[in-house]
Amino acid sequence: MDERVLTGDRVTGKLHLGHYVGSLKNRVELQNNYDIFIELADVQALTTHFDKPEMLKKNVRNITMDYLASGIDPEKSTIFVQSLIPEIAELTVYYSMFVTVSALRHNPTTKSEAEAHGYKDLYYGFLGYPVSQAADITFCKAKLIPVGDDQLPHIEQTRRIVRRFNQLYHPVLIEPEALISEVPRLVGLDGNNKMSKSLGNAIQLDTTEQDVNEKIKNAKTDPARVHKNDLGHPEVCPIYAYHRIFRSEGADEICESCKKGTIGCMECKKKIALSINHLLEPMRQRRADYLKKPEIVDEILIAGTQRARKVAKETMREVREAMNLDYFCSK
Amino acid sequence: MDERVLTGDRVTGKLHLGHYVGSLKNRVELQNNYDIFIELADVQALTTHFDKPEMLKKNVRNITMDYLASGIDPEKSTIFVQSLIPEIAELTVYYSMFVTVSALRHNPTTKSEAEAHGYKDLYYGFLGYPVSQAADITFCKAKLIPVGDDQLPHIEQTRRIVRRFNQLYHPVLIEPEALISEVPRLVGLDGNNKMSKSLGNAIQLDTTEQDVNEKIKNAKTDPARVHKNDLGHPEVCPIYAYHRIFRSEGADEICESCKKGTIGCMECKKKIALSINHLLEPMRQRRADYLKKPEIVDEILIAGTQRARKVAKETMREVREAMNLDYFCSK
Repeated sequence: MDERVLTGDRVTGKLHLGHYVGSLKNRVELQNNYDIFIELADVQALTTHFDKPEMLKKNVRNITMDYLASGIDPEKSTIFVQSLIPEIAELTVYYSMFVTVSALRHNPTTKSEAEAHGYKDLYYGFLGYPVSQAADITFCKAKLIPVGDDQLPHIEQTRRIVRRFNQLYHPVLIEPEALISEVPRLVGLDGNNKMSKSLGNAIQLDTTEQDVNEKIKNAKTDPARVHKNDLGHPEVCPIYAYHRIFRSEGADEICESCKKGTIGCMECKKKIALSINHLLEPMRQRRADYLKKPEIVDEILIAGTQRARKVAKETMREVREAMNLDYFCSK
Repeated sequence: MDERVLTGDRVTGKLHLGHYVGSLKNRVELQNNYDIFIELADVQALTTHFDKPEMLKKNVRNITMDYLASGIDPEKSTIFVQSLIPEIAELTVYYSMFVTVSALRHNPTTKSEAEAHGYKDLYYGFLGYPVSQAADITFCKAKLIPVGDDQLPHIEQTRRIVRRFNQLYHPVLIEPEALISEVPRLVGLDGNNKMSKSLGNAIQLDTTEQDVNEKIKNAKTDPARVHKNDLGHPEVCPIYAYHRIFRSEGADEICESCKKGTIGCMECKKKIALSINHLLEPMRQRRADYLKKPEIVDEILIAGTQRARKVAKETMREVREAMNLDYFCSK
């Protein structure tokens, strides 16, 4: 049996190239060698979007379609909806008994939010986000969690919860490990450090060829370059960053030509637009195929959720037994 | 349909006369006119006893037996186990999204605990206790909660959560009301203000006649009385307090005789032991009947939990619909 990997996305919007580069590409490879569980984290999205739950229904399907278009194979990967696994809520409640408020306050994400909003006004569910994350990871006994360096403290928190549980009750939970991968962060079309839908600087995975061309055409470049012959500074240009990521074999050449002023931004942009469209083209094909029978997205989600639920029920049975909460043998 | 009442007990030990006087007696009356749900709050017990879960299994059955012995009729009242209603955990998670840490810190119980232990070292689950209480009350759409005056802030917290939920999403939850009853607090055998198992000053409901006599014989009385003729101060004597509660028709006479020194403590104790045994005798009978077929306790618990679960599932369906989390019509 392949080792289980848990990964997923908060259900806050369609996925874009930043997601593809940062995680989807990796998942498409991992699914061949691991038993991947992909969580549509709708409950987690509520920690910051509890007043906009109506967007979840649409986005759960949008993101699933993005997965399928990217090459996630529902036969290999288990795509499931977090809120449809009540065992995650149950585990969250049990773990919350032995995690202190102090430990949660030391979570780096919470700390920076606390600075922004003031600790007292944090929502209780938001403060407890690392506890619910431990429930996500442990309900399916995931062994590996693909993360970037910056997310290691999250995994460490889950490991502490697992060790505490196993020591308090009975060792039934699995201590997860970070599967650290080189996760390039994609800059936005406006040069912002992060491509993000909410910043309006993203290329979504469902963007048409024409719209990709348009978006790239309007993207920011080195502000020092006005004429083609001006010497460029590729290191400050988002287009050059895209060359490095999506067109690695030609990137050195672009770098030189830009610095020497022998290639214009227009030409440089055309090349990268071509590469991005080349990457997105098979996704468009797969998306079109799935759109021919749209009910299949629901079928995939229901089947994946059922598979995840089966695992969750078994873990919950073990957890209750470990905690001596198995009151009735027949149940 | 009768209005629903929610009540219950933390599953931390067998019940004693203090519980009978403070709540059981009232429930036995209420069950004739209300649809009573009685929760065996095992998850809530874990907020303070997470390192001793093994006591839950035994106490769930002990307390159920105490209920049945006290005259709770499982045909009229729904006795259920909290942890077997996963919808309570789900609701707790959803409500926690929009309750601030600050609001929870202002809960009187939390405040006094925070003073005792320091706020930072509180457990996250303990801090969230009022949220899970709101889940207890709302999953079954209880309209009335029997409480003493001191618990009104708890009900108010639930009412705030209900109003917020109904306003954010859709008005599906019921705002509960306190059913304030005169709840006498029973002093302990040692004169401590509260009868409590952990203080070792309690008469459990399953105490034998002989043991009641013994416990009363050893109970504290007015320390100023050494000889029968010494003038007594009934207001400081726990035995006199018991007379007021369990033997109200004769209490005035006892008061006078004690003050005048015309009744000795021995005689006074004998009278109250007789009354307490008189109260406990029918409970012993019922207990003996149930003990003839002990499997019936499990059957009652399973049936009650199934009944509560059915209500919980329906509420959860409405809650998911209100929150737009009803992803698949078929589910």
